[in-house]
Amino acid sequence: MQIAKVRGTVVSTQKEPTLTGIKFLLVQLIDEEGQPLPVYEVAADRVGAGVGEWVLISRGSGAREVEGNANRPIDASVVAIIDTVTVENQRLYDKGTQW
Amino acid sequence: MQIAKVRGTVVSTQKEPTLTGIKFLLVQLIDEEGQPLPVYEVAADRVGAGVGEWVLISRGSGAREVEGNANRPIDASVVAIIDTVTVENQRLYDKGTQW
Amino acid sequence: MQIAKVRGTVVSTQKEPTLTGIKFLLVQLIDEEGQPLPVYEVAADRVGAGVGEWVLISRGSGAREVEGNANRPIDASVVAIIDTVTVENQRLYDKGTQW
Amino acid sequence: MQIAKVRGTVVSTQKEPTLTGIKFLLVQLIDEEGQPLPVYEVAADRVGAGVGEWVLISRGSGAREVEGNANRPIDASVVAIIDTVTVENQRLYDKGTQW
Amino acid sequence: MQIAKVRGTVVSTQKEPTLTGIKFLLVQLIDEEGQPLPVYEVAADRVGAGVGEWVLISRGSGAREVEGNANRPIDASVVAIIDTVTVENQRLYDKGTQW
Repeated sequence: MQIAKVRGTVVSTQKEPTLTGIKFLLVQLIDEEGQPLPVYEVAADRVGAGVGEWVLISRGSGAREVEGNANRPIDASVVAIIDTVTVENQRLYDKGTQW
Repeated sequence: MQIAKVRGTVVSTQKEPTLTGIKFLLVQLIDEEGQPLPVYEVAADRVGAGVGEWVLISRGSGAREVEGNANRPIDASVVAIIDTVTVENQRLYDKGTQW
Repeated sequence: MQIAKVRGTVVSTQKEPTLTGIKFLLVQLIDEEGQPLPVYEVAADRVGAGVGEWVLISRGSGAREVEGNANRPIDASVVAIIDTVTVENQRLYDKGTQW
Repeated sequence: MQIAKVRGTVVSTQKEPTLTGIKFLLVQLIDEEGQPLPVYEVAADRVGAGVGEWVLISRGSGAREVEGNANRPIDASVVAIIDTVTVENQRLYDKGTQW
Repeated sequence: MQIAKVRGTVVSTQKEPTLTGIKFLLVQLIDEEGQPLPVYEVAADRVGAGVGEWVLISRGSGAREVEGNANRPIDASVVAIIDTVTVENQRLYDKGTQW
């Protein structure tokens, strides 16, 4: 999985019928120092993440191992909202102090 | 998924029989600032996207989770025509004002 | 899918038994301006592509959605010989005028 | 698989229900000279790896070929704790002498 | 598939039980001019490749389309030992003259 920060949303009406009702978030990948990477994903979200939150995203076929997504043409999903990231005993991110 | 802009088409007559009738679009990936990336895909399209439109593409096995594509040797599909992309409450793209 | 140009062949006798009889082509990926990318694939070919031709390759599990390949350890296949590539109404490639 | 060094952990409470009880390690990829690459993964760990250890990670659908993970939205798993890495008859890494 | 040169081995005792008995080779990817790329894989080997040999590796789910590997958490396998690589009628590699 990769760490990413929620930055926005993508909206579409003309799409594969199975994608109806799916919320698409634009998330920016974050490196292991907490800095933004020049890589984004448009990820299906069922966890309820909001702009500014750090999340874990799963890509590829793993993105469809979410209830209801098995037969949707999705290759990226938000699978968790992150509480803390700890690297070598230092707190890189703590949701509690960010909000 | 990635955001991409439709730029053209690829036509082939000598191909895997299961690809007969599939429309292949050449799409250029777009970054999270709205700029073109030096990356393209040739994506199967069933949504009916036209040149200049922004679309969402799904890659890998997800591209085959489109009705009729399950057993086609496809690794990229257009899955949605984008209406709007919003990043940190700013409108990055709006189909209504582009056309 | 990606556009690629056939450049050569790879031959092996000591290999997984299921690969017996499969032709392996070395193909160079081509960018959306028609220039070679510093990326190649060794792709299984059942379409009958020849050196110099432009082809579409499918990678990942899609490469095995070709008749007979379902249980072969293949991650790239030639799935079409390209006739034409058109980008913004300009002809980038035309097999008829190249040969 | 890729070689990686365990650097930390990622904790989340609000997540896909199937991820409950899974330990997520932040691991940094290591190149073939033993140097850190600017690439990390957040990998599910069932092997019991600790910070500082070198591990093998498997990505993509292979990450779910671990007992109990088949239907979890996971795209990276720690599958082994490395004892030794030998390159051209030279020992690049030996867990016994590192600890 | 990608062309790679066998450089070494990775040994582990504490690992997923299904990986017991699998030989892991460290292989360096080779570009289409025969030069080493800054990319390696740790690939499961059942073909019996030795250090210095050029091999074909298959990555992703294709790596598990090898007898016995279907349910192992493997994302790269050696699937062939290369005899010859020919690019535009020139011999890039010939195992017979290398050994």
